[in-house]
Amino acid sequence: MTKTAAMLVIGDEILSGRTQDTNSNYVARQLTGLGIDLKEVRVVGDDETEIVAALNALRARYDFIFTTGGIGPTHDDITADAVAKAFGVGIGYHPDAYAALEARYEKGQFNDARKRMARVPDGAGLIKNSASVAPGFHIGNVFVMAGVPMVMRAMMETILPQLPQGVPVTSVTVSAALPEGALAEGLAAIQKAYPETVIGSYPWMQDGRFGAQLVARSRDAAVAEAAAKAIEAMIVNLGGKPERVTG
Amino acid sequence: MTKTAAMLVIGDEILSGRTQDTNSNYVARQLTGLGIDLKEVRVVGDDETEIVAALNALRARYDFIFTTGGIGPTHDDITADAVAKAFGVGIGYHPDAYAALEARYEKGQFNDARKRMARVPDGAGLIKNSASVAPGFHIGNVFVMAGVPMVMRAMMETILPQLPQGVPVTSVTVSAALPEGALAEGLAAIQKAYPETVIGSYPWMQDGRFGAQLVARSRDAAVAEAAAKAIEAMIVNLGGKPERVTG
Repeated sequence: MTKTAAMLVIGDEILSGRTQDTNSNYVARQLTGLGIDLKEVRVVGDDETEIVAALNALRARYDFIFTTGGIGPTHDDITADAVAKAFGVGIGYHPDAYAALEARYEKGQFNDARKRMARVPDGAGLIKNSASVAPGFHIGNVFVMAGVPMVMRAMMETILPQLPQGVPVTSVTVSAALPEGALAEGLAAIQKAYPETVIGSYPWMQDGRFGAQLVARSRDAAVAEAAAKAIEAMIVNLGGKPERVTG
Repeated sequence: MTKTAAMLVIGDEILSGRTQDTNSNYVARQLTGLGIDLKEVRVVGDDETEIVAALNALRARYDFIFTTGGIGPTHDDITADAVAKAFGVGIGYHPDAYAALEARYEKGQFNDARKRMARVPDGAGLIKNSASVAPGFHIGNVFVMAGVPMVMRAMMETILPQLPQGVPVTSVTVSAALPEGALAEGLAAIQKAYPETVIGSYPWMQDGRFGAQLVARSRDAAVAEAAAKAIEAMIVNLGGKPERVTG
């Protein structure tokens, strides 16, 4: 059974447009590589009620939830408290996190704000990582990560080996300099003929020419390849020149 | 009363990680400029049930909803049907959209797939735009736009003058080469002293040095400025050098 996931991005700076979220895309690509289906992303602000509601909606529905943002030392970092509230548990210093942070700072510098980074919901495990002494944490099916992309990626590196390996989706992409409107009818027929693929069409425009990338996705690599071959044949039939796109 | 908004990004390609969504950030910045608060973003796949559920949840809760993606001519473009279903209305060709599209194509080229782009829910109005003959549409409090960023932006240009102008948030940013852990206590006190601002802290790292951008946001420009001055005084007190960041 394919595992599902959702992502919860936490931060006013995303919603104001100050910051372009790139963490979702990174997590999406990692999960796709593992064979886990990312089904939904939500972005909410630094608001406890919103975080709790979104987290509870998502964790009831998907196998794994990944959150980013709000676990630093400042007053606007409220994710740990919100997660504890969502799970209905207490919150306190995790001894390992506390010890690691205490060791990182010089005497007198390990102030209350920095101690906040050792606070995790009761029962949570730590997500240690190579980028920061301050850990993420996991509780139930929820993985709580930093918002800073470099730190988030280091935390994902810790998490990924713990996730179940599914069958990754094979994705075969064919590009043609034909407009979507000319491709659509044939493409719909191919989608019907290959129900075990999901075929997507993504238009492009370059130097005044129109085209589309046609993507056949399936957990059965042979089926994706067969659908891609059918797409290539259709493009040739329409007088176009199909091109495989890799990467 | 400040108007609120949500964004619904529709597309498998975002969830698979194939495409980095940048439309949300663009819409966020446009709305922030207008004084409308973007409160939530959701990303769902090309799945009618998911689109309908998300749209109905969001449109009941926020003043305006902006969707992107799924309004092209191919079989995976199902947004118009999903929106009609969410509103419980029928769907058919909009005569203006049909006429505009028909005029765009040469005789015999205006096929069923292209006609699909003229289909809008009953009662919807068109979002004409400078980038594409195929329009977006609006129904109730929902604005339905293309996923291709250039076309989405052209549609936003049509929409923006129709939206109510609120009081934009003034955002004052002060940067300091001090770690968040050193700033946190003072920052929390300033947040308390200026309850009409929302103060955010965004860490940075450069050449091995740590720092943070501290952002005071308020609809009262004088309050944001006063909070920023308090932040600057705190930074000086800590032996740092505050720098205003613009743009």
